[in-house]
Amino acid sequence: MSFEKLDALARKLDAIEHALSILGADEATHMAVGGGEKRAEAMSELAGIYHAQATAPEIGDWIETAKAEHLDEDQRLAVGEFERNYINATCLPTEFVQRKTSATMRSEQLWRDLKAKGDWDSYLPALEGVVSLVREEAQLRAEALDLAPYDALMDQYDPGNRMADIDPVFADLKSFLKDFLPEALGRQEQRLATHPRKSLNGPYPIEKQRELGLAAMRAVGFDFTHGSLAVSHHPFCGGVPTDVRMTTRYRTDEFLSSLMGVLHETGHALYEQGLPKDWSHWPLGKARGMGMHESQSLFVEMQLARAPEFWDFMLPLVHQYLGEEAIPGWDVADVLNEVNFVERGYIRVDADEVTYPLHVILRYELEQELVAGTLEAAQIPEAWDAKMTEYLNISTLTDPKDGPMQDVHWPAGSFGYFPSYTLGAMIAAQLGAKMREDLPDMSDQIRSGDFSAINRWRQDRVWSQASRYSTPDLITRATGEPLNAEFFKAHLRSRYGA
Amino acid sequence: MSFEKLDALARKLDAIEHALSILGADEATHMAVGGGEKRAEAMSELAGIYHAQATAPEIGDWIETAKAEHLDEDQRLAVGEFERNYINATCLPTEFVQRKTSATMRSEQLWRDLKAKGDWDSYLPALEGVVSLVREEAQLRAEALDLAPYDALMDQYDPGNRMADIDPVFADLKSFLKDFLPEALGRQEQRLATHPRKSLNGPYPIEKQRELGLAAMRAVGFDFTHGSLAVSHHPFCGGVPTDVRMTTRYRTDEFLSSLMGVLHETGHALYEQGLPKDWSHWPLGKARGMGMHESQSLFVEMQLARAPEFWDFMLPLVHQYLGEEAIPGWDVADVLNEVNFVERGYIRVDADEVTYPLHVILRYELEQELVAGTLEAAQIPEAWDAKMTEYLNISTLTDPKDGPMQDVHWPAGSFGYFPSYTLGAMIAAQLGAKMREDLPDMSDQIRSGDFSAINRWRQDRVWSQASRYSTPDLITRATGEPLNAEFFKAHLRSRYGA
Ligand SMILES: [Zn+2]
Ligand SMILES: [Zn+2]
Repeated sequence: MSFEKLDALARKLDAIEHALSILGADEATHMAVGGGEKRAEAMSELAGIYHAQATAPEIGDWIETAKAEHLDEDQRLAVGEFERNYINATCLPTEFVQRKTSATMRSEQLWRDLKAKGDWDSYLPALEGVVSLVREEAQLRAEALDLAPYDALMDQYDPGNRMADIDPVFADLKSFLKDFLPEALGRQEQRLATHPRKSLNGPYPIEKQRELGLAAMRAVGFDFTHGSLAVSHHPFCGGVPTDVRMTTRYRTDEFLSSLMGVLHETGHALYEQGLPKDWSHWPLGKARGMGMHESQSLFVEMQLARAPEFWDFMLPLVHQYLGEEAIPGWDVADVLNEVNFVERGYIRVDADEVTYPLHVILRYELEQELVAGTLEAAQIPEAWDAKMTEYLNISTLTDPKDGPMQDVHWPAGSFGYFPSYTLGAMIAAQLGAKMREDLPDMSDQIRSGDFSAINRWRQDRVWSQASRYSTPDLITRATGEPLNAEFFKAHLRSRYGA
Repeated sequence: MSFEKLDALARKLDAIEHALSILGADEATHMAVGGGEKRAEAMSELAGIYHAQATAPEIGDWIETAKAEHLDEDQRLAVGEFERNYINATCLPTEFVQRKTSATMRSEQLWRDLKAKGDWDSYLPALEGVVSLVREEAQLRAEALDLAPYDALMDQYDPGNRMADIDPVFADLKSFLKDFLPEALGRQEQRLATHPRKSLNGPYPIEKQRELGLAAMRAVGFDFTHGSLAVSHHPFCGGVPTDVRMTTRYRTDEFLSSLMGVLHETGHALYEQGLPKDWSHWPLGKARGMGMHESQSLFVEMQLARAPEFWDFMLPLVHQYLGEEAIPGWDVADVLNEVNFVERGYIRVDADEVTYPLHVILRYELEQELVAGTLEAAQIPEAWDAKMTEYLNISTLTDPKDGPMQDVHWPAGSFGYFPSYTLGAMIAAQLGAKMREDLPDMSDQIRSGDFSAINRWRQDRVWSQASRYSTPDLITRATGEPLNAEFFKAHLRSRYGA
C-alpha cells in the first residue's frame, strides 16, 4: 500500500528532523565552543540526507496512488500534507537551492560583521544578490503552487495566507494605530504622572530567577516530563514535542525580561506539547505554521501574562522566589507600568504590543515591493525612513544598524515571514475574545493561577488540530470567523485606551 | 574519482554518527524523562539510514576502483579502513541483523528485569537464544574475514587481535596472578597494620566535587574548548572529538570514586581530542578500537592517577577545592590505601587493578567455549563458579546476580569485547614503561602537575595514529615490541609487591 510507504518515509524524515532539532538546541545550550564547525558540517550533511530522502521521485507516485486508496479521515488529510511538503521540497531545482544556500550563508555572515558598524553600503551588494535570488525563488514557487509570487513565499510559513486577505486586515490595523498610538502615549503620560514608574531592587541572582521562571512555566501548564529550560544567548523554544527545549537568558539587574520571555516561549512549548501523539511523525501532526505558533506564544505573553489579573497571581510568586525585598512596595499597577510600557522605538524586537505591528507592516509592505521588483535593495534606506517617519515619527536614515540592518530575515533570504508576527498577535486576540465568551470565569481563573480550562480550550481548538487545516481555515474553525483586526484593536483599546 | 565518492560518503556517515553520539550523550544527561520512547525511535531510524547508506552495493566497486587510483599514503590507508568497515557492515545478511537486534533487545530487557532477582533460570532461555545467534554471527563473520569464529568477533572491537596472540599473554598473566594476588594481599595486611585506613570527613557537596573534577581534568590536559563534563547515572565518555561529552556521578559521602572515574574518562577524552583533524570523517581518522581506547583511560587512571607522585600534586588540589577539613590529617599514603585497595570480590566493575584481569580472563575463556560450542549457556553457572573458585577463591553458585548475571555484555550479544579491558591495562603498562625510558623526569613532571611531555608522547605514538594500523601493529610501533604481560606484571609488582 502506498500510504504505508509514505508512513515509513515519514518516520525516517521525522527521525532526521528530531536529530536536527536536538542538535540545534544542544548547539545553543551545551555544545563546547570549539564544536561549532563540525556541528555545522554534520547538520548540513543531515539536511542534505533529509532533502535527498524527501524529494525522491517515487514519492510523487506514492502520493498519487495513496489518494485512490481506502483511507480514514486522518490518513486522507495526511496525504494532503505529504503532497504539500513534497511540492515545497521539489519545486526548487537542486542547483538553485545550492546557489541560494551559499549566497544566504555568505550574506548572513557579512551582515553579522557589518551590522555592528552600520555599514550599509558595504553590505548592499550581498543583499542585492539575495533579493535577486528571492525573486527567482518566488517565481519558481509561484509556478509550482499556482500562486502570486509573494503569496508563494508566505505559504511556506503559513499555508493559506494570501495578500488578498492580509492586506485589508493590515490596512485596517495601520489606520487604527495611526490615531491610537498618540492616544495611548497620552494616557500613559497621564497615568505615570500620578503613578510613576518604580525602580527595581536588584541584583536578582540567576538561580532564583530560574526557580521563578520554572514556577511560572509549571503554573501555565508546561509539562516537565516532556521538556526543560536551559540558558542560551538567544532565547528559543526548540527540541521535539516529546522533549521541548526552552531557553531563556538572565540579567541580574532586573528579572522581568527573562520572566516575560519564559512565558512567551512557554506559549510555544504548550503548542508543541499539545500536538496529537498518534501520528506525530506525519507532516499532518506538526504545528500548523509560524503565525499560528506565534499566536500561541503571544496568547500566553500578551493575552495572559500582561493582564492585571495575571499579576494578582504572579506577584506573590515573585515575592516567594525572589524574596520579599525584591520589589518592595510594588503592586500590580507598578508591574503593568513596566511590562506594558509603550514607546516609539527603532527596534522591532524591543517594541511593545502597540508599536510592534507598525514595525511588521512596514517590512511587509517593503517585502512585497522588493519581491515584485518595484523596489530595489539600494532604495531600502529611503523607503524605510519614509515609512518609519510616517508610522512612528522616527528617522532612521543616519543609522542603518537600527534601521534596515536590524533583522536577520532579509540577510538570510527569509521573505514572507515577517507578517506572521503580527498575524500571531491578532490571532491571539481573536482566540482570547472567543475564549472569554466560552469561559465567563476566565479572569478569575487567571487570578487564581488556574489555567486548566483555558488550556483545554486551546487544546481542543488549536493544538489537537495540528496541520489538518490551512492557517485561515484553522482560525475560522477555532473562532467562528475569519481573521480580522477587530479583536486585536479591542484588546489594545481596553489595555491602553481611554 | 572513486576515492572522492568514498570521501563524500564518509562525510554523510560521519554526520549520522555525530548525530547518534550527541543524541546518545544528550539522552543520558539532558533529555526530559518522557522523551525516551521517541528518542529511541529516532535513533533506531537513524541507525537504519546509516546502515542503508553504509552497505550500498556500489561502495564495493568504489573501493576496488580506488585501490587503483593515484593516492597519497593517508588515502591509501583510508581505503583499507573503508574496506574493513564495508566488509563488517555487509557480512551479516539484513535478515540476520534484524533477528539478532530484536533478540538481544528482548534479552537485555529481560536481563534487566531478572538480574535484580538473581533469577537465572527464567533468564536462561533468552541467553541460550543469544548464544545460538552469536555462534551464527561468528560463523558469518569468520567466513567474510577468513578468521577463526571467535577471532572474527574480537576483530570488531580490536582489529588484528587474535586468540593465538592473546591466549599465551593471558596464560602468562593468569599464572603470575595466581601467586601474586595472595602476596599482594599479605603485603597490604602488613601495611594496614601499621598504617590503617582512615575515614573520610564528608559530606562533600556536589558543586565542590564538580570543581575538583574539572580542575583534575584541566591539569591532565582536557581541552574545555572541545568538551565538557556533565552528570549521568552511568559515567561515560561520548560525544565527538570536537565536543567530547564526559560524565560522572557524585555521592556526597565520599569523593574518590567520582574523582577517579573522572580521571579514567579523561583518559578516553584525551584520545578523542588528540585524533588527527584533517580527515576526521574517514574511518581511518577514528580511534583504533576498544582495547586501545581502554589503554588510554587506564593510562591516566592506573599509570598516572594511582601513583604516589600524582597525589603529591593532587592532594593540595583536594584541599583547595573541598576545604582544608575535607580529609583532615591525610597524607599520600592514606589516599593510596584507599585507591589501591586490593580485595577478592564478586563484581568485575568493582574490582581493583590486581584482581580485575582474573574477572576478564574468566569471561574470555568461557566466551571462547560458548562460541566454539564446547560450553552451553546452561552450564555457565557451574563453569563460572569453578573458575571463580580457582582464580579468586570465591563461590558464586548461590548468587547468579553477582555471578554470571552481573554484566550486560552477554545479554546484549557482545561477545569478544571482554578481553579489551585487560588488554587495555596491559597496553597502558607497556606504554608507561616505554614512556619512562624516553622521559626520565616523568615522575617529577607528574609530581608538579605537568603532563605536557607525557601527553606529547601519547599524541605522537597513539592519538595521532588514529586507525592507521591494526591494534597489535599500533602497540608494536608505539612501544617497540609486541604486547606482552611483562610490563603489566612489573607494574603490579612495583605497586603491590615486595
Ligand atoms: Zn515567539
Ligand atoms: Zn573506560
